Amino acid sequence: MSTVPIHTDHDEISAEEFDLLQQKVLDARNLSYSPYSKFRVGCTLMTESGEYISGANLENAAYGACICAERTALSKALLEGHRKLKLIAISSDSEEPITPCGICRQFIREFGPSVPVYMFGTKGKFQKVYLQDLLPLSFGPENLGIDPEHYK
Amino acid sequence: MSTVPIHTDHDEISAEEFDLLQQKVLDARNLSYSPYSKFRVGCTLMTESGEYISGANLENAAYGACICAERTALSKALLEGHRKLKLIAISSDSEEPITPCGICRQFIREFGPSVPVYMFGTKGKFQKVYLQDLLPLSFGPENLGIDPEHYK
Amino acid sequence: MSTVPIHTDHDEISAEEFDLLQQKVLDARNLSYSPYSKFRVGCTLMTESGEYISGANLENAAYGACICAERTALSKALLEGHRKLKLIAISSDSEEPITPCGICRQFIREFGPSVPVYMFGTKGKFQKVYLQDLLPLSFGPENLGIDPEHYK
Amino acid sequence: MSTVPIHTDHDEISAEEFDLLQQKVLDARNLSYSPYSKFRVGCTLMTESGEYISGANLENAAYGACICAERTALSKALLEGHRKLKLIAISSDSEEPITPCGICRQFIREFGPSVPVYMFGTKGKFQKVYLQDLLPLSFGPENLGIDPEHYK
Ligand SMILES: [Zn+2]
Ligand SMILES: [Zn+2]
Ligand SMILES: [Zn+2]
Ligand SMILES: [Zn+2]
Repeated sequence: MSTVPIHTDHDEISAEEFDLLQQKVLDARNLSYSPYSKFRVGCTLMTESGEYISGANLENAAYGACICAERTALSKALLEGHRKLKLIAISSDSEEPITPCGICRQFIREFGPSVPVYMFGTKGKFQKVYLQDLLPLSFGPENLGIDPEHYK
Repeated sequence: MSTVPIHTDHDEISAEEFDLLQQKVLDARNLSYSPYSKFRVGCTLMTESGEYISGANLENAAYGACICAERTALSKALLEGHRKLKLIAISSDSEEPITPCGICRQFIREFGPSVPVYMFGTKGKFQKVYLQDLLPLSFGPENLGIDPEHYK
Repeated sequence: MSTVPIHTDHDEISAEEFDLLQQKVLDARNLSYSPYSKFRVGCTLMTESGEYISGANLENAAYGACICAERTALSKALLEGHRKLKLIAISSDSEEPITPCGICRQFIREFGPSVPVYMFGTKGKFQKVYLQDLLPLSFGPENLGIDPEHYK
Repeated sequence: MSTVPIHTDHDEISAEEFDLLQQKVLDARNLSYSPYSKFRVGCTLMTESGEYISGANLENAAYGACICAERTALSKALLEGHRKLKLIAISSDSEEPITPCGICRQFIREFGPSVPVYMFGTKGKFQKVYLQDLLPLSFGPENLGIDPEHYK
């Protein structure tokens, strides 16, 4: 079995930025519409240019149409013209950090195949894992003969 | 077979707003990331307070992870705090107006069960259909005992 | 607003077949894996050649990965080589018949754009609606220049 | 960066079964309905009791409604009452083995969190990876307080 490297540094950003990010990603949970799971998830990503963009899970009576926090946040960033990510942070209402689901790993991978994912618990616990470690040997554009750089 | 009422008026907005909307929703196609289908779709919705919010389809090598224009635009609006919609407009690269897919009808239905959908072709053709006519007898929160108003 | 024709006949099949279908689609709920919604849905479709094929909703901790009863049943039929449907029946644990969600209407539409949908309540209530009335003005293969008959 | 263990043994099954599996999973591609991607994928899984169950990707004009081979095959197995998997095999039209997308990893994880995934190229190349290595630190039922064993 592989051992995924779990990091605790936040080398991509300063201590000040880290504190601000943590506050923002916990606040992001308030954007959640989750009457079905009652499980709020928040996401805040930082673009290469240093902007913070937040999302949350948006659920639907047809469960298959639910969109997770990571995907709403990343969609918003893409629509605003950001295609380079510095990091993605997520939070929920649990003390333990949670990880992105497989759908989100796949969705993120198209735009940030090696982006660091910052995972925050409600009481300060923090872990960092790189996307390529969360979705190793990924299926991606190359498998379909597409170079995504031509389209970004 | 039912006959869905297709309207050609734009009673929700002024002529000036209509022209601006048309321009914005055609521009929205430029936000599209669609290397797989090569079929760009744009969406611009207007909130009750009069703001224009645009989205486009964001595709993925795993086709099931693609998110349509209507859903990215609506997600963005929801994340920005708008939960009341005046209308949703869509466009593509075809002369004939296109309609939303079933996934999007379902996603929109949770927040705008009776919203008008404005559909624009590339050369000025315009049609309006109400969501309840695009997704009649819909499956929704009520089927699961949820009152979405409590959560918005 | 359109008025969708809701039928109560079962002209596609005999009284005997109707009774068997009702029993099978209520039984199909037992195939459900729905620990999240606790809302069991069953689906039984009849192929043109008269076979009954059943499915149920299969849920996932990542709600977006849930697959509804209609889609699991139709997938199974397709994998078994059936590409012509006589009808699709659905059931749930509620007395009132429920309708398919928008995702399923879209998925069914690719293979059965005019298939009758039989909807059963738990205590004998029955309604029939045609797919083209549940998903009028649908987005389909033609919009992408594809003739699905070449691929079936 | 983690190094995912890629295996080349097929210790779960005999040499005879391996040959049969390879033939079946290559044949499974013929079940594919993929007019959009024109990328056929086949999947054959073996249940604990030794049955072979095959699936393929079933696409839709609304790309988000596409269902991959792994999910159609696993759905079929679940509907037929199999909830314990021995292994999952996949194939495509490419010489190099392909890996499951993130959606499928997530869907499989609910029922086979540690199942071996056999990946076959068209010309005999073979690799094996365990699901927990393809979706490490997964989001699952436990995160929502659900014990899936109660529901299977
Ligand atoms: Zn997710
Ligand atoms: Zn759509
Ligand atoms: Zn459905
Ligand atoms: Zn997949």
